[in-house]
Amino acid sequence: MKHSMQRLSELAFQNGPLCVGLDTDPSYLPPNLIGDNPAQSVLDFNKCLIEGIARDKSASCFKVQAAYYEAMGIMGMKAFSETLRAARKSGLVAISDVKRGDIAATADAYARAHFTGEFEADIITVNPYMGFDTLSPFVSFCADRGKGIFVLLRTSNPGAADIEQKKLESGGRVLDAVGGALEQLAEESRAAFPDQICPPVGAVVGCTDEADARALREEHSALFFLIPGYGAQGGRAAVCAALLGGAGGVVNSSRGILLAWKRDAECRAVLDAGKTLTLEDITKASRREALRAKSELLSFTSKRKTPERET
Amino acid sequence: MKHSMQRLSELAFQNGPLCVGLDTDPSYLPPNLIGDNPAQSVLDFNKCLIEGIARDKSASCFKVQAAYYEAMGIMGMKAFSETLRAARKSGLVAISDVKRGDIAATADAYARAHFTGEFEADIITVNPYMGFDTLSPFVSFCADRGKGIFVLLRTSNPGAADIEQKKLESGGRVLDAVGGALEQLAEESRAAFPDQICPPVGAVVGCTDEADARALREEHSALFFLIPGYGAQGGRAAVCAALLGGAGGVVNSSRGILLAWKRDAECRAVLDAGKTLTLEDITKASRREALRAKSELLSFTSKRKTPERET
Repeated sequence: MKHSMQRLSELAFQNGPLCVGLDTDPSYLPPNLIGDNPAQSVLDFNKCLIEGIARDKSASCFKVQAAYYEAMGIMGMKAFSETLRAARKSGLVAISDVKRGDIAATADAYARAHFTGEFEADIITVNPYMGFDTLSPFVSFCADRGKGIFVLLRTSNPGAADIEQKKLESGGRVLDAVGGALEQLAEESRAAFPDQICPPVGAVVGCTDEADARALREEHSALFFLIPGYGAQGGRAAVCAALLGGAGGVVNSSRGILLAWKRDAECRAVLDAGKTLTLEDITKASRREALRAKSELLSFTSKRKTPERET
Repeated sequence: MKHSMQRLSELAFQNGPLCVGLDTDPSYLPPNLIGDNPAQSVLDFNKCLIEGIARDKSASCFKVQAAYYEAMGIMGMKAFSETLRAARKSGLVAISDVKRGDIAATADAYARAHFTGEFEADIITVNPYMGFDTLSPFVSFCADRGKGIFVLLRTSNPGAADIEQKKLESGGRVLDAVGGALEQLAEESRAAFPDQICPPVGAVVGCTDEADARALREEHSALFFLIPGYGAQGGRAAVCAALLGGAGGVVNSSRGILLAWKRDAECRAVLDAGKTLTLEDITKASRREALRAKSELLSFTSKRKTPERET
């Protein structure tokens, strides 16, 4: 069995490192496309986009942000489930961005919730704050079922300074203690897959701080990274390129792609002509933006990557 | 408007500090009580228990652990929604134990998800790891809608040593930095309710470590505490008593109450007679256990509390 993180690393090499973030809030759609059931409208858009992106091979994975679906209640959870199903069926990897974290039996319930059943994803994001024992139930699913986890290491928001970047009396920062634990978990979880290069345990590292990005890439060369903060949050492609060294990673863009219709010339022409946008119009705009982002990310990484592959 | 944390602190004074944890995994029910739809069986038990506990006045609140409901998929989320609705209708306070935490717009979506709509709770638990800016959307709901949050400060698992208890170069531990931020947020959020004593922002502090419990109670005398770890996790009532000083708090018991039927003399007599347990049997056992836990907690706190109230 090829585990999900290995599959993702191979897809990132084939299709490029773009991760399409499906943080699809109903407010991101043109008002005329929101029906009586906003969750259904969101799902319709997600499905069109997933199908188009997979056909274009412009991305390696989708990241579904649970918060936006929870905010829509039961119908939202149905859309969450159907979006994950469509993402997994597309052939690309489905990441569920849930950032769960809890102790023992509760962590196991979260692992069951997001690695099996109606909310099943290939990979999920996990919050390590309550301690490294709380990661074990998720790691078990990696070894036993070929799932993967991205553990929060260095997030892309200013608040990363409050805890993650705090210096410890014993040396290093809080995030270094987390990184050390991840190295160990990665090694342990990889043991179940001796024929595969990528460990099933990866890390979330934002691309908003260049110094941190370079240091963490160097320190954790074997870990595959999920890289948020690109586009709307101000992260630069050059910083992403640094993070994409070593074992590589995927770079998430959510609003940049979902809201592409607002900046898209063809969509603007439709609106300027006094017409309303169709689902097809906005999906096409998002697909164009995904192709543009893919090519931007590849242009930054190609110079560095090619020599490495040749040696 | 009386905010939820103030209401909880008053209920804890009237009914005692017990919080009934509805971490209701289907496996906690006798097998004969699990029907074709386990989530419905869980909901039936929760509703009976909520009604009985409210009638007995043996607790001040219910804590619904989201993980167990997410693990049951869409039907589980319906049971989650209905359980929260029943808890809020009972007159006691409904706490949703979701431990969510994310940045900016995503944190706002989580706040909307759990403070409005089908998953509306009075108070939720929040994970501060990604930084104090990530708490703001939740705090806004406290000030604007009278909601409350319990932020993770010192959890009850051994892994608390990995991050929370790590010493910082600048002095104190990680949890002290969190505690300092909570004091400030508590003060800010209280400003919207000048006639009320309790701040809408409280803290989660486990009762498994006596030294930490006493130090944190002393350091944060104005914060109301949610106290996990009592019973099944080995926390002692005497440590709870220490944590219940100052602004007070509520002490959660989940498995101790949900699984009471396994140790209950009347339930055992039914099983010994070769009969099966009814929903009424197990609910009664849980209600007896809640009354016992209430009286245990009160016996530890009464000596200390009475003189304080008299002065």
